[in-house]
Amino acid sequence: MNAYIITIGDELLIGQTLNTNASFIGEKLTESNIKIIKSSVVGDSEDEIIAEFNNAWSKSDLILVTGGLGPTHDDVTRKSVISFFKTTLVKNESVLEDIKTIFQKRGRKLTAINEDQALVPKIAEVIRNSHGTAPGIWIEKEKKYFVVMPGVPLEMQAMMETFVIPKIETLKGRTDIITKHKVIQTTGIPESFLFERLGSLDELLTGSKLAFLPNQFGVKLRLTVENSDENKVHEKINEIEQKIRAKAGRYIFGSDDESLEEVVGRILSDRELTISTAESCTGGLVASMFTNISGSSKYFERGVVCYSNASKVEILKVDEDTLVKFGAVSQEVAMQMAEGVKSTSGASIGISTTGIMGPTGATTGKPVGLVYIGYCDDKVCTAKKFTFGDDRILNKQRTAQAALDFVRRQVLGISSDD
Amino acid sequence: MNAYIITIGDELLIGQTLNTNASFIGEKLTESNIKIIKSSVVGDSEDEIIAEFNNAWSKSDLILVTGGLGPTHDDVTRKSVISFFKTTLVKNESVLEDIKTIFQKRGRKLTAINEDQALVPKIAEVIRNSHGTAPGIWIEKEKKYFVVMPGVPLEMQAMMETFVIPKIETLKGRTDIITKHKVIQTTGIPESFLFERLGSLDELLTGSKLAFLPNQFGVKLRLTVENSDENKVHEKINEIEQKIRAKAGRYIFGSDDESLEEVVGRILSDRELTISTAESCTGGLVASMFTNISGSSKYFERGVVCYSNASKVEILKVDEDTLVKFGAVSQEVAMQMAEGVKSTSGASIGISTTGIMGPTGATTGKPVGLVYIGYCDDKVCTAKKFTFGDDRILNKQRTAQAALDFVRRQVLGISSDD
Repeated sequence: MNAYIITIGDELLIGQTLNTNASFIGEKLTESNIKIIKSSVVGDSEDEIIAEFNNAWSKSDLILVTGGLGPTHDDVTRKSVISFFKTTLVKNESVLEDIKTIFQKRGRKLTAINEDQALVPKIAEVIRNSHGTAPGIWIEKEKKYFVVMPGVPLEMQAMMETFVIPKIETLKGRTDIITKHKVIQTTGIPESFLFERLGSLDELLTGSKLAFLPNQFGVKLRLTVENSDENKVHEKINEIEQKIRAKAGRYIFGSDDESLEEVVGRILSDRELTISTAESCTGGLVASMFTNISGSSKYFERGVVCYSNASKVEILKVDEDTLVKFGAVSQEVAMQMAEGVKSTSGASIGISTTGIMGPTGATTGKPVGLVYIGYCDDKVCTAKKFTFGDDRILNKQRTAQAALDFVRRQVLGISSDD
Repeated sequence: MNAYIITIGDELLIGQTLNTNASFIGEKLTESNIKIIKSSVVGDSEDEIIAEFNNAWSKSDLILVTGGLGPTHDDVTRKSVISFFKTTLVKNESVLEDIKTIFQKRGRKLTAINEDQALVPKIAEVIRNSHGTAPGIWIEKEKKYFVVMPGVPLEMQAMMETFVIPKIETLKGRTDIITKHKVIQTTGIPESFLFERLGSLDELLTGSKLAFLPNQFGVKLRLTVENSDENKVHEKINEIEQKIRAKAGRYIFGSDDESLEEVVGRILSDRELTISTAESCTGGLVASMFTNISGSSKYFERGVVCYSNASKVEILKVDEDTLVKFGAVSQEVAMQMAEGVKSTSGASIGISTTGIMGPTGATTGKPVGLVYIGYCDDKVCTAKKFTFGDDRILNKQRTAQAALDFVRRQVLGISSDD
């Protein structure tokens, strides 16, 4: 099965919106072993859209389309689908119910143009939308599959995960080669170092495949194993994973879709530990990551964001002399911040961040990107220096990630040194 | 002149790399008033690339290609160009000099495969590469223009800015239609309500175009105006913008690329106001958004994340009886949290969030998605109720966005009511 991705919208063509939908769909299809032959972007023009549908239909047996399903005049995808498949629109009662429910929940009155979103192509199976009003569409014709999803990333992502990918998985069940992927997530080590650490890949993999997928938070290792025997696939995955762990275990924090905040939350929860955060440079991002996890109230006690020196002294009991002597961005202040938030909150662990995120704020000897992360529990109080880059947002994200990983390593007793 | 963008690389198709090149090129062309008719991604396959060159050549008079110009075996773009234009490769001495200089600078020995990068298509004009070893290519044939640039963003961007765009500007002196875009950003109103509020679009636009671009934070309105007279274009944009503002002004927070946190920061800064945050359900996200802006230390005093009732009482001086009587998720507690953080921090404004983000935590009468946002300054102390959806992360983001917009409206004296 070969896939063709079509993303629709003038905002994509003119570079106003980054095409994250095409890459999300590309990633998911790749995980499901579907080869993508082409991806294209067309504007909100019915003629262009239909021409591209024809193009894709002649080249591929799985076509995924996003965008242009909204309720307003510039959304012409549904119209194009109707015209391309020479079908008509029919009202779908379950979709209408979904739309009514969403409007009820939001305490808003249903408008006529939203009610019209319950009209779907007659030949289509509906993909319910759990996050918005535009339903997705699944059409099977001449042994080809044509999927249309909204352009709002969250709505499209939910449809891909709960409907499209599971459906594709059943369709391709015809082959007898089983392919499994396992993603091993690392953080705190650059791609090239990880590569060297793993040594000879031929020896490690013996026929399986390993992709290095770096992003700003770390490197994901995607292992792909194929065999006609499912047990053998699992055995092989386990065998290679163990070898990788033996070589780079300390950098591995989780598998597949696990986030670091999820892993750290579980570690704290399992040990009945609580944590409080004292953030300067990350400005609340560490607390926000902790609280992204449902149930985090069990272990996340409280957080403070202390930008000013005054607030560091007042709330976190940082020593004024230390601030003057070493500066706010220092190992000493990082430790005192962690200690301060631990003792004032009564949590088992205090974690702190202080640094220069840029673009301004650098001083002699303290460049943009310099960060100290402090950690304090009942036994140890320590701080670690990091050097990140020039980009403010990226520096915040990297610092927050490093802070969470610092907690993980400290609690699990993993040495931070290479 | 119509443009067609082709980006080449398996890593784009499988979603491993976000296609920032296509959006950069799209943005630059749009600024130069070039209409982009299509953008496509093809993998590192010579057949696919040549097929796409043919496609583009038949549809467009300006074709921009990036990617696949590197020195290794999987870079097949140059080969495809040679085959498509039925030309040959010739050694270009200035390119060879460039390559040698780069290797000298990096203190590395020139390899044979890098020396081969000085071979360019005979019919091409060379675009020198100031950041890397692969030269760009500019070909004119049959009154069409064909540009090939490396896929490394920095290298491509430099070529676009110093060579391609200036060249295009001289070429298109021929046309006399000027196209300008203006983006008007709204929040706090769903797409369909905004659409209804604007009334008859034909009347409003009289020939210009308006696109509705919704995301989880609000709806962007992109206005497109065309005319041969630049002054008339600007007049028309102003005229329509004023009409839109008259109808939906209270929902408009900014223009073009401005973020809400940037706008709110500027409003606070201009009025010499400071702000502190007291977050329960957003868990630090509001503080993190404020501190994403460089210079936010001028107006962002401090933030606290109080998940537990105890911390609300202890840090924010919320009344225990109020907590018992109304519950933590209530208008009363939201107001007291805002008041508490204002008075303890000494900031001009206190803003608070309390709500049920889900998936768990709902109680009778308090469903997932229920949120109260509190606001307190020297004159007024108030709180507002919101009803969001089921998704935890989205609920956090929407609440944070609504909190920032609440500050904007309160400080500017814009009524919150519809």
